[in-house]
Amino acid sequence: MSSPARPRAAVVVTGTEVLTGRVKDANGGWLADRFREAGVEIGTVVVVGDRPEDLHAALSWLTPTHALVVTTGGLGPTADDLTAEVVGAHQGRPLEPDEGLRTRVQARIDAVTARNGWSLDPAAAAEGARKQSLVPRGATVIEPVGTAPGLVVPPARGTGAPVLVLPGPPGELQGMWPLAVLDPHVAAVLDAGVPLVQERLRLWGTLESDLAALLRRLEDAPGSRLSAVELTTCIDDVGELEVVGRFSPDDADAWHALVDAVADEFGATLFSPDGRSLDALLAEALRSAGATVATAESCTAGMLASRLADLPGSSDYLQGGFVVYANEVKRDQVGVPEEVLAEHGAVSAEVARALADGARTRLGTTWGVGITGVAGPGGGTPEKPVGLVHVCLTSEDVVLAEALHLRGPRERVRRRTVVTVMHRLLAQLRG
Amino acid sequence: MSSPARPRAAVVVTGTEVLTGRVKDANGGWLADRFREAGVEIGTVVVVGDRPEDLHAALSWLTPTHALVVTTGGLGPTADDLTAEVVGAHQGRPLEPDEGLRTRVQARIDAVTARNGWSLDPAAAAEGARKQSLVPRGATVIEPVGTAPGLVVPPARGTGAPVLVLPGPPGELQGMWPLAVLDPHVAAVLDAGVPLVQERLRLWGTLESDLAALLRRLEDAPGSRLSAVELTTCIDDVGELEVVGRFSPDDADAWHALVDAVADEFGATLFSPDGRSLDALLAEALRSAGATVATAESCTAGMLASRLADLPGSSDYLQGGFVVYANEVKRDQVGVPEEVLAEHGAVSAEVARALADGARTRLGTTWGVGITGVAGPGGGTPEKPVGLVHVCLTSEDVVLAEALHLRGPRERVRRRTVVTVMHRLLAQLRG
Repeated sequence: MSSPARPRAAVVVTGTEVLTGRVKDANGGWLADRFREAGVEIGTVVVVGDRPEDLHAALSWLTPTHALVVTTGGLGPTADDLTAEVVGAHQGRPLEPDEGLRTRVQARIDAVTARNGWSLDPAAAAEGARKQSLVPRGATVIEPVGTAPGLVVPPARGTGAPVLVLPGPPGELQGMWPLAVLDPHVAAVLDAGVPLVQERLRLWGTLESDLAALLRRLEDAPGSRLSAVELTTCIDDVGELEVVGRFSPDDADAWHALVDAVADEFGATLFSPDGRSLDALLAEALRSAGATVATAESCTAGMLASRLADLPGSSDYLQGGFVVYANEVKRDQVGVPEEVLAEHGAVSAEVARALADGARTRLGTTWGVGITGVAGPGGGTPEKPVGLVHVCLTSEDVVLAEALHLRGPRERVRRRTVVTVMHRLLAQLRG
Repeated sequence: MSSPARPRAAVVVTGTEVLTGRVKDANGGWLADRFREAGVEIGTVVVVGDRPEDLHAALSWLTPTHALVVTTGGLGPTADDLTAEVVGAHQGRPLEPDEGLRTRVQARIDAVTARNGWSLDPAAAAEGARKQSLVPRGATVIEPVGTAPGLVVPPARGTGAPVLVLPGPPGELQGMWPLAVLDPHVAAVLDAGVPLVQERLRLWGTLESDLAALLRRLEDAPGSRLSAVELTTCIDDVGELEVVGRFSPDDADAWHALVDAVADEFGATLFSPDGRSLDALLAEALRSAGATVATAESCTAGMLASRLADLPGSSDYLQGGFVVYANEVKRDQVGVPEEVLAEHGAVSAEVARALADGARTRLGTTWGVGITGVAGPGGGTPEKPVGLVHVCLTSEDVVLAEALHLRGPRERVRRRTVVTVMHRLLAQLRG
């Protein structure tokens, strides 16, 4: 890495539900992106539960060595929401009631309650407003988007990072960010950053280790400038390999050289050289072909159609489809002949083909998709084991049939089937 | 809490892709559950990226105050996988090649490659095996499930926690856990634990603050034993409120008293007093009623049908359905009359009703579900704004129609619609 030293920030996520994995934290990554855009690196995220000692210990560890520490969560009305108190104590600023803030918080609780038609116990609401308007002495209040105010809490004396205190619900945290960055302590850290550009590319069907071998060769080549790009690679459980590069704007040529080398070596699997998602690329390809799609899904049971409808405007290409779980539905609604079902069985190339053609002709679309398989964990036989999925994609001129042999749990077999069909359709549309 | 002091462990998750939120960590929560079952508390999870200094700093912070530190990830074949080296250095044990292990890792790489039909560059594979078989001097090797071995690395001298090093892929980590707990250092920590029972209940439609008010009343009641239960509450973005209680087996009566009090106060919303999921409860209710379901979905476009197929054996109740994105599909496949579409528009109670009846009668099921709405972000009008979704549930005798007014992004409107329909159907089946 040739990038100059950047100021560093750290995030402390509070909440037992995050610690135990029952809720996935959405804030750490979002904050890391915001800081990275400003050229401030987040190198550490700490997750602690509801024990105040643990939050205090995390602050004691992080504040001496970072320019800013951000906490998320623990600002709610319940007794286990202790972030303001612990941060205040750590920074030498005891809590004090803020009467004006209490009134504003109470008004927000009333408004939210009325808007949602909730019936909230007035005593509980008043107690919540009282608690949520306790402010560490001398801290700056960030006005709430929900009902919980944020805080900027610099140390009362001595050195150490100021602590930016934000609520846990991602909508509130993100809504308050524009206010948070106006605070002089926060602004000073962001302004000291050295912005990096972030670009990405996506492959499907290439292994991380094969990519690593290419990267080693490129790095070892004479005159290589690849080390100017901070690279991370990551493969997900349906086989998408994402490569993220971060670099100073001056080093953009090093990233582009990498993209060219990947395209040379893995041209068949590099489906997104600019990082756009499979969903967005497929939507664009369908739109520019003026093509429409109909589905007939057995084991995926609507997962493909639902995914095709994820992006706004999907009615441009998705007409509709069939969920054909029972054999009679395959026969009566999509027209799969009884003989085909009897002779080949529901999980067969022949039925996948009949489903694709039936969906396409019944809905009058350009493309039809048929999916039938054994998602598991039960229902497998030696001839048709769990993970066998027949997919078929047809248009008036094209028949693309494939038997997938997928591993993993039911949920992954189904998800992987959907992703495979989307890639096959994208490849067809690209010609 | 009356529970006695328990030994504590900490988890360090490594990986820039987790730190930046591109990959959600699945291991921290899984490990927390395993430790909790043994009565060992995990109070802190630290996430660090690929910078070795950050991992080193986290180990220096955590090893003095914990009985065991577990690291996950960073054991892969690429150059940025540095966990073994950094942990070894921290514990005073430099890396040494383990020739026997190298042979076993190479054999595993060959087997995985052959099984998946991958073509792996032999030089890259050999380099990976060499790197993955470097072991801190005197550490114990945990045999790999994938290709990455685990490690148990006690400090070479002095005090401080041993470090259990596990790979990042959840399947590998979980597969190696039974071997990891056999290691004497790991076993000693788990054996010192004081096991707690964990129970949960689920509500839908009750606010966290209303529950908090009840909890305060219960705690303040004379003779209350609620403080014997360690409680966490958490509401997700579709309105499910989960209450988790952890308690010593001797304090089970305190948990049951809480469940009774919640049932008294929130009987209408407490759908799962024993913590079973909505999906499992609905599946059970459909099965015991011998009932079947057919769907006709517009804005959710198959998401409900796909969700109903999530559990194995779902063909017992899910017959199939229709994805009716285009109006012609509503008309031609499900029989929504042209006049109804013209008079009331596609997003209307009348069309939802016709969809439910059409799906039910065409597929011959007990229940039919019709869904039509404006998921957004575009397509709203003053009369039919974004978030308006008409749902209808019909059987031969019952018609349950409802206009939902949902807030939030497209994805959440669709997911919340699906959850609402599942709750309504569960309530119907329960009578």
